[in-house]
Amino acid sequence: MTILDTRNDSQLDTLFEPLMQEAVAEIGQTSSLLEQIAAYHLGWRHTDLSPVTETRPNPGKRIRPKLAILVTMGLGAEPELAAPVAASIELLHNFTLVHDDIQDRSHLRRHRPTVWSLWGEAQAINVGDALFAASHLALYTVADRPETASLLPRLARAFDRTTLAIVGGQTLDIENEGDASVTPERYLQTITGKTSAIVEFSAWAGGLVAGASEVQLTDLGAFGLATGLAFQIRDDLLGIWGTEAETGKTPADDIRRRKQTLPVLELRRVLTPAERAELDAFDLSTPASDAEVVRTLDLLQHYRIQERVEHEISVYHRHASSALEAVIPRGSNTAAEQLYALLDGLEYRTG
Amino acid sequence: MTILDTRNDSQLDTLFEPLMQEAVAEIGQTSSLLEQIAAYHLGWRHTDLSPVTETRPNPGKRIRPKLAILVTMGLGAEPELAAPVAASIELLHNFTLVHDDIQDRSHLRRHRPTVWSLWGEAQAINVGDALFAASHLALYTVADRPETASLLPRLARAFDRTTLAIVGGQTLDIENEGDASVTPERYLQTITGKTSAIVEFSAWAGGLVAGASEVQLTDLGAFGLATGLAFQIRDDLLGIWGTEAETGKTPADDIRRRKQTLPVLELRRVLTPAERAELDAFDLSTPASDAEVVRTLDLLQHYRIQERVEHEISVYHRHASSALEAVIPRGSNTAAEQLYALLDGLEYRTG
Repeated sequence: MTILDTRNDSQLDTLFEPLMQEAVAEIGQTSSLLEQIAAYHLGWRHTDLSPVTETRPNPGKRIRPKLAILVTMGLGAEPELAAPVAASIELLHNFTLVHDDIQDRSHLRRHRPTVWSLWGEAQAINVGDALFAASHLALYTVADRPETASLLPRLARAFDRTTLAIVGGQTLDIENEGDASVTPERYLQTITGKTSAIVEFSAWAGGLVAGASEVQLTDLGAFGLATGLAFQIRDDLLGIWGTEAETGKTPADDIRRRKQTLPVLELRRVLTPAERAELDAFDLSTPASDAEVVRTLDLLQHYRIQERVEHEISVYHRHASSALEAVIPRGSNTAAEQLYALLDGLEYRTG
Repeated sequence: MTILDTRNDSQLDTLFEPLMQEAVAEIGQTSSLLEQIAAYHLGWRHTDLSPVTETRPNPGKRIRPKLAILVTMGLGAEPELAAPVAASIELLHNFTLVHDDIQDRSHLRRHRPTVWSLWGEAQAINVGDALFAASHLALYTVADRPETASLLPRLARAFDRTTLAIVGGQTLDIENEGDASVTPERYLQTITGKTSAIVEFSAWAGGLVAGASEVQLTDLGAFGLATGLAFQIRDDLLGIWGTEAETGKTPADDIRRRKQTLPVLELRRVLTPAERAELDAFDLSTPASDAEVVRTLDLLQHYRIQERVEHEISVYHRHASSALEAVIPRGSNTAAEQLYALLDGLEYRTG
């Protein structure tokens, strides 16, 4: 069956959110507290664990599951075929967020207190583990439809390998902390795992359930990977040059917090030995002083790092676009239009 | 093919350990540190992460995977059919241990420093997550054999539901801490999830891959569940009345640490109001004093709690035995003998 209709964002949500809810309901079999905290994290409950009945408080943009569904639709297949994949991706992503917030000691996520800050680290570890198990239960529902049942072994393997890439990237990220010798290459390896692998999986899996060929699957994976990299590097630019109105954070926040993101790593590579020695003298264990922030911004400007990194982003975007074009040409149907609109929106986003 | 040979413990290990190693090797795709720490936890590497070449330092008893394989063999099926299940169970169990050790702030596991105590909490969270993903990769290898390929959806669902029971039990356990109102029923619910669900899955899954009927699978699950409960309650008895030679711990260690295990919960239920008020006056936030330990042991003896709990264990063991008898009668083959020897060994173990 070929579906060429267009669906707005909340219609896409309706496709996979019931599967997320079913999987999360299974968490409650042994401990209802565990289920309720998971539901809090997903925006379905308030901090007092009462159900959210009004419009949801920021359940996240859900770009990853939407990408999977739009790829499926762009290939002319029923969007419902992508629902298990979409639900499992969003649950997987949320499991990693709950654990990341513990690791990074983050107090806020989507403008609400983080799970560990409300219920403690021990329970937050459990909530993440439970969401990860639940993400599998959502994925396994591909076995319930004859069109996709035979894909389960391949999909499931790719799903857990994707998780290993995410967790491996997070491990590298922690290893990199306070290490001034991190190279841009190592940084790209880190974000390839931590941020891009799940976008790669989303696009690839959306193609798989739609019956894409092996060549198409390779292109879709490349499209997802490049999109994820561009997305993360855009985040890095915004962390330095984004305005408060755009990002909700202080300008140059990442410099102040001494985050070793791509602009800073690219800068280190082009500095003179004297300039590098000057940066090396900064104490990485404390936030940067105003003078240090100004000096770093000056050097970034002098070496035109923003332009250089903007260029890198546009290269990834061009790569993403051409890989996608090979499978789902622009304008081929309304889902394709939505997909390219999503991609273009990511390229030029300011927050 | 009917296999009636007997295999010693290390031969059973040889059946599933290669699958564990393959799955753990996949962890190294993004971060080799992550793989190496996982291998350390599994007893394959030293604290300096160099490979262990001599006899392994305490890789654990591996009762759960062995139970699965012996059930498969007891039903007359090839032990190799149980290898994916066995490897995934052992990896799942080890994932929960890595996270439990963070939650409980345990410094030692199998006589070696815990992962979090050596590499920090953040990396220990990653190691547990990675082992959990790897446990799935091991399980999915059931799809590689024609005899078991069609079982994947059912097996995988049961596997993640088992994980939800384990994590839910751990959540209840943390909720119970310092709560004097915990009932024996709630305690049984906690250990059913935390300890017994995985033993239930082991026996059930060993039967499933051997082609057991639905009635047999129900009996095997009941056998595993009762065995797991008896095992945990035996642990509780040893935590109070075990000698140092048997357990490697100070006698009455659980009383000193104010652990709310079954003997103490059963005691509370039969105390007079005056005696209960006496115990309630103890400060649960500090270790028990010698006088408090002596008084608690006196009350336990007065109300014959040890005998009462011994009786409960024997009831679970009888239940486990009769459920198993219905599927694999005693003496039916050498694997059955090994299985009953394992069961009897658990019933009368002193350490």
